[in-house]
Amino acid sequence: MNIIKYPTVSEYKKICERPHFDATQLNKVVCGILDDVRCRGDIAVREYCEKFDKACIEDLLVTNAEIEEAYDSVALELRDAIILAHKNIKEFHESQRFESKPVETAPGVVCWQKSVSIEKVGLYIPGGTAPLFSTVLMLATPAKIAGCKEIVLCTPPDREGKVNPAVLVAAKVAGVSKIFKIGGVQAIGAMAYGTESVPKVYKIFGPGNQYVMAAKQQVSLSDVAIDMPAGPSEVCVVADETSNAEFVAADLLSQAEHGVDSQVILICTSEDKVNEVQAEVARQLALLPRKEIAAKTLENSQFVLVEDTHAAMDLSNAYAPEHLIICTKDYNELAGMVVNAGSVFLGEYACESAGDYASGTNHTLPTHGYATTYSGVNLDSYNRKVTFQHLTEEGVRSIGRAVEVMAENEHLDAHRNAMTVRRVKVEGM
Amino acid sequence: MNIIKYPTVSEYKKICERPHFDATQLNKVVCGILDDVRCRGDIAVREYCEKFDKACIEDLLVTNAEIEEAYDSVALELRDAIILAHKNIKEFHESQRFESKPVETAPGVVCWQKSVSIEKVGLYIPGGTAPLFSTVLMLATPAKIAGCKEIVLCTPPDREGKVNPAVLVAAKVAGVSKIFKIGGVQAIGAMAYGTESVPKVYKIFGPGNQYVMAAKQQVSLSDVAIDMPAGPSEVCVVADETSNAEFVAADLLSQAEHGVDSQVILICTSEDKVNEVQAEVARQLALLPRKEIAAKTLENSQFVLVEDTHAAMDLSNAYAPEHLIICTKDYNELAGMVVNAGSVFLGEYACESAGDYASGTNHTLPTHGYATTYSGVNLDSYNRKVTFQHLTEEGVRSIGRAVEVMAENEHLDAHRNAMTVRRVKVEGM
Repeated sequence: MNIIKYPTVSEYKKICERPHFDATQLNKVVCGILDDVRCRGDIAVREYCEKFDKACIEDLLVTNAEIEEAYDSVALELRDAIILAHKNIKEFHESQRFESKPVETAPGVVCWQKSVSIEKVGLYIPGGTAPLFSTVLMLATPAKIAGCKEIVLCTPPDREGKVNPAVLVAAKVAGVSKIFKIGGVQAIGAMAYGTESVPKVYKIFGPGNQYVMAAKQQVSLSDVAIDMPAGPSEVCVVADETSNAEFVAADLLSQAEHGVDSQVILICTSEDKVNEVQAEVARQLALLPRKEIAAKTLENSQFVLVEDTHAAMDLSNAYAPEHLIICTKDYNELAGMVVNAGSVFLGEYACESAGDYASGTNHTLPTHGYATTYSGVNLDSYNRKVTFQHLTEEGVRSIGRAVEVMAENEHLDAHRNAMTVRRVKVEGM
Repeated sequence: MNIIKYPTVSEYKKICERPHFDATQLNKVVCGILDDVRCRGDIAVREYCEKFDKACIEDLLVTNAEIEEAYDSVALELRDAIILAHKNIKEFHESQRFESKPVETAPGVVCWQKSVSIEKVGLYIPGGTAPLFSTVLMLATPAKIAGCKEIVLCTPPDREGKVNPAVLVAAKVAGVSKIFKIGGVQAIGAMAYGTESVPKVYKIFGPGNQYVMAAKQQVSLSDVAIDMPAGPSEVCVVADETSNAEFVAADLLSQAEHGVDSQVILICTSEDKVNEVQAEVARQLALLPRKEIAAKTLENSQFVLVEDTHAAMDLSNAYAPEHLIICTKDYNELAGMVVNAGSVFLGEYACESAGDYASGTNHTLPTHGYATTYSGVNLDSYNRKVTFQHLTEEGVRSIGRAVEVMAENEHLDAHRNAMTVRRVKVEGM
């Protein structure tokens, strides 16, 4: 780990740098597969499935029997954990429901917004060694609450053509409409364009490898919306002399195990605590099964010593972390200073993994500094706000002349005239 | 205009088709300018300004003296209209403020969202014959309400190096921080990357020609967010036998005057009314200064006769219009059936131009069918929702074991361990 002591504000930029990955290198391969899926539909999907996932899939749609079988096959303890996590995620995202408030902006002019769900959404869940059933809950639960009519999920099958049972259980619990055994770029293409089996959706959510990310970016240029741009996962921990070094070390390591491109930053006001955390990291690292990955990530991690917690928050806001853990004694005050972050964990007991799985907050969050601009996935991600307005005769009297004057000055005479014909009727002019 | 009688649902797709424009043809030119602005900053910006706008601009920033001069030079009636429109837009967008509701999802686990403004935003306002000062109000007013610290506006100068005074007045009224005399692709580049004069922003809003749109799309791939994808403006009017043909014709024409690529659709339940509207369109068209443009647009417009208003709403939802005017007798009932639309105008007096200028709703809206997926610009467009969570010891007892089980099953041992070290402290395990 790199230890940086008392950096000046001009040094923040360097500390906050992320590794640059240029997805355009993959675009040729990605666009080839996307075009093929667009033109040849299911046949192309099946061919890529055979090529990349080494699986021959006749029926791309997961059957109800397969879902029931999965439900019975997973350990009771895991099923209960999924159900508990779903309950909390549901409760938090339900609290995000929008209430319309009509406003009379001028006499006889009433405006309001109405939240309407996106009718068809697609969720992508990667395969591989670690089945991300938690991400199924995070993406499907708010879609269901929003009222999306079609919630499509694509995930790659294993070589036997099976989908991980925990993924199926989470999909059933969260209310996914259709699950397809399709992975990679072909899955993104199938959901963006539609095939004989897979419905075309309006917005695609979910993580994936660099090919999947490049595919999401490509289709977002003209065919569908996507949740947000992607990058490696990150944590920033803000600590002081009162923080629990064992907990802080465990939090840093939980991020470090994700992959060698994960970003880990500790910002601390106490040099003793930095040393203590270092020792704890070394002790805990030795016990981890994925210690090689975590060790490599930690080589690039940064431990930054700052004057006080206000400087810590300035640096954290400049970094704009995906996950921000604040475990100082004044965490409540610092919470009010958060400007740029995806999800914030307050106090010594709020570890990132609490939010990754079961506290109720969403774990699909902006990385790579995008927290300056984007929200994490939340109920809004599945809704649009349509505006409505109603004018009475009085409304025409209130704003009619202003509309005419503005339209005239923008040289849009037919715009003016649409109001004039109404003014003539109402005001007899 | 094309008259289509009683189409079947299978014919909706054809009616809803939009002309396809492929911005990638422009990418070579656009990327060249963007790269140049990224590398050479203000010098490149000034060169392109000279090349495209035929103006030599030493100081790119509009001075306070220029703004004061503009304020004194515009007609009082226009200034008052701008102030009235701003008041209504402000009132409606202020009503969109988000209130945080902390939720205890499980005993000792509290989650909440906090709305935080995007710190730096950029607004683009095209130049040309019609100065879009109304768009300044629509983009800057919610930015100011959200609390964006830096609100940058770029707009091209005329050959004398001046910016339209109404644009400056609207910018002053709405609270823009800095106005730059920069247009086109170079403006998008300047705001995306920052130059010596222009601050780098996190999100770019606003309309523009096809080059500007292609530039926004390019920079959105890695550098900044953008408001939404773009396309030609559209209106759909849903009418019945009670609708006022003169008003309907005026509304169709107000859309048609925008440009020859504008989309105009009338969906009506009465054949007599369709004929009446046609006659009114012909009569009003002859009186319009921009009649050539409007006439050409109307050639491609569609007048669709349907069985009843429910069929009308099905077709409208399939079309997903930017602007939807519902002027039937049952407009209140039909309002509840709107699924896909940008902004909806209800009753005989709510003409589109009311919302274009002064009702209070935003006029920056999703076109080209994107209303299925995107909202128009609203207060949310300038905010992010950051999630927070706090756990007590009881919180660890509530969800600790579920987090461990889920992490284990995703093979993320360090994630599990971050909770285990806390469970050991709390539960002494």
